[in-house]
Amino acid sequence: MFNFSFENQTRIHFGEGQITAITNEIPTDAKVLVVYGGGSIKNNGVYDQVVSALQDHRWFEFSGVEPNPNYDTLMKAQAVIKEHAIDYLLAVGGGSVVDGTKFIAAAALFAGDDPWDIVAKQQKVESALPIGVVLTLPATGSETNIGSVVTRDGHKLPFMSPAVRPQFAVLDPAVTLSLSDRQISNGVVDAFIHIMEQYLTYDVNGKVQDRFAEGLLQTLIEEGPKALLAESKDNLDVRANIMWSATMALNGLIGAGVAQDWSTHMIGHELTGTYGIDHARTLSIVLPAVMKVRQEAKHGKLLQYAQRVWHITQGSEEQQIAQAIKLTEEFFQRMAMPIRLSDIELGKSDIDILISKLELHGMVALGEKQQITLAVSRQILEQAL
Amino acid sequence: MFNFSFENQTRIHFGEGQITAITNEIPTDAKVLVVYGGGSIKNNGVYDQVVSALQDHRWFEFSGVEPNPNYDTLMKAQAVIKEHAIDYLLAVGGGSVVDGTKFIAAAALFAGDDPWDIVAKQQKVESALPIGVVLTLPATGSETNIGSVVTRDGHKLPFMSPAVRPQFAVLDPAVTLSLSDRQISNGVVDAFIHIMEQYLTYDVNGKVQDRFAEGLLQTLIEEGPKALLAESKDNLDVRANIMWSATMALNGLIGAGVAQDWSTHMIGHELTGTYGIDHARTLSIVLPAVMKVRQEAKHGKLLQYAQRVWHITQGSEEQQIAQAIKLTEEFFQRMAMPIRLSDIELGKSDIDILISKLELHGMVALGEKQQITLAVSRQILEQAL
Repeated sequence: MFNFSFENQTRIHFGEGQITAITNEIPTDAKVLVVYGGGSIKNNGVYDQVVSALQDHRWFEFSGVEPNPNYDTLMKAQAVIKEHAIDYLLAVGGGSVVDGTKFIAAAALFAGDDPWDIVAKQQKVESALPIGVVLTLPATGSETNIGSVVTRDGHKLPFMSPAVRPQFAVLDPAVTLSLSDRQISNGVVDAFIHIMEQYLTYDVNGKVQDRFAEGLLQTLIEEGPKALLAESKDNLDVRANIMWSATMALNGLIGAGVAQDWSTHMIGHELTGTYGIDHARTLSIVLPAVMKVRQEAKHGKLLQYAQRVWHITQGSEEQQIAQAIKLTEEFFQRMAMPIRLSDIELGKSDIDILISKLELHGMVALGEKQQITLAVSRQILEQAL
Repeated sequence: MFNFSFENQTRIHFGEGQITAITNEIPTDAKVLVVYGGGSIKNNGVYDQVVSALQDHRWFEFSGVEPNPNYDTLMKAQAVIKEHAIDYLLAVGGGSVVDGTKFIAAAALFAGDDPWDIVAKQQKVESALPIGVVLTLPATGSETNIGSVVTRDGHKLPFMSPAVRPQFAVLDPAVTLSLSDRQISNGVVDAFIHIMEQYLTYDVNGKVQDRFAEGLLQTLIEEGPKALLAESKDNLDVRANIMWSATMALNGLIGAGVAQDWSTHMIGHELTGTYGIDHARTLSIVLPAVMKVRQEAKHGKLLQYAQRVWHITQGSEEQQIAQAIKLTEEFFQRMAMPIRLSDIELGKSDIDILISKLELHGMVALGEKQQITLAVSRQILEQAL
């Protein structure tokens, strides 16, 4: 196991009806900006619950944060913050709203000249407005972690700072019952691949981390498809198990002290940037190809994954691994996700474009051992055809 | 799954050499009291590492905190705190030193008349001196949780307060290489049974919590005995996996949203209080008897435990459960722990004494459903003969 430092201070209020917890979480004298997206929270009752919980607070609102939150949109919040002397942000939404709120919080107290430098020049974020979260879509883990991704002019850029870790997060699985099948599919698969990025590398004898990761993977494999089936999609336990898995998938715990990959994400980002494909749907295409092309380097962990997550015991090691990859693809398909570039109508001719984008963005040595050169990325994309 | 709130703010620095992290964790202008036990840290190099890390701090020391830390001992620290205007406590030791330091921290800022009321009358602890921890014995989880147990005149009483949660904890597995076999055995089995108290209850469909618990149990079953064997006891990975498991076992995570038992602990406490038996050695005697006597109420979870933790697939459900209990006992024996009252030279005549102690302490309805009356506790102790 590698040495590591780990912390996660976010207070979690989990379960049906927990939105009421924000009343006591946010100081009564705070001036609150409620940040949300396209307005779906006004149709599913979440907005009303938030309004009710904030009835003794002074609050204002800022809506319109889009998927892959846009810099220009987020900067419009700064005027509202100044006008009303906002000193607390409440993000109500999924990963994009939370990520966007993190950028708003950092930009509000940014000491430099141009807030875009936070992502463009990775200028350190020393302070930020305090953030609370009411999560509506389990997927990204942003509700308790320190990361955020912001988009401007087709550039999708991340930043990280402990200053933007939410002070609290409300996780009410009942809120997720109104999500579309596509949102559920994307969320489950996004969380699944967050786990794989921190698990499917090489063995450092981190037994707790491995078993926690395997437990989360098994839970998503079991519960994910149930959230799409008519007979079980309204089951609150199913939603609760998915929601808790997605938070645990990227709160820092399973990645502490072990190697991490993230090549699937880096290659997937180019598919989103170039063709506007949903983030999770790029991952379900790239991961199986990474598993196949990187089979030798990842042999030990792939075998462990086959045996522990899929309980495969028959056949040679190579056969067990092949079977595990096949079952992973079938799981993605059960989640109604694409698993090949052809599933989203891309072909051989697109690979050159994607490789040049990777090169442009400096993604020339990806993966847990920086062995995924552009040539290997090409192999991966060809494998994914 | 039940609704829950979860938080754990303790920053963890994990790995060999991490004691140096305390230099930056404790404010330079703090006046630090280093709290430790019988002085073993002076023989194993830990004291020297702490002194070196604190070379630019003003610090004092308070030693002599005993196992089952004693109120009178802990109160002696108050004079030192006043004399030197101490404003930061650094606990260097195992669970007893950490628990004792938590009481010292709470007593120092206690607003009431008598600090003993913190445990005797469960008076709320609103504030406490900040605490840091250098852990030397993985077992109790006290290094990141809010609990503490203090003893006075044979009364072993707990208190809990978020104010005493350590701000940071250094977990250096190399520090544990100098522990005696008995300390290792006690620590591994204590952690194991902390997990069982939060796992072996009834099913609430908390899939993440169950799988995390099972992963920790499997890790302790695999790694615990290795820490006693000549050929593997110096293996740092073994120590690291045990240490991380013990912290995760009682940091609040696996117990969030699920039922909890704790009857084994309550019955075990009377064995410690009456006969001075090591805490963990009471647990290894009581747990198997609880599993047998409560087999019907715990059927579902016992079967899951048999199948997932011990991979038992053959035989009837009852046979699988019986086999799992037998394997649990054999694991405790491999850890050189007693599993019967007769192993510690207690017999039938002691049961009346223990039952009267349970009655005296109000322990008349134990377990996840408060179904363990004194009559059931008697059955459990008879089963343990």
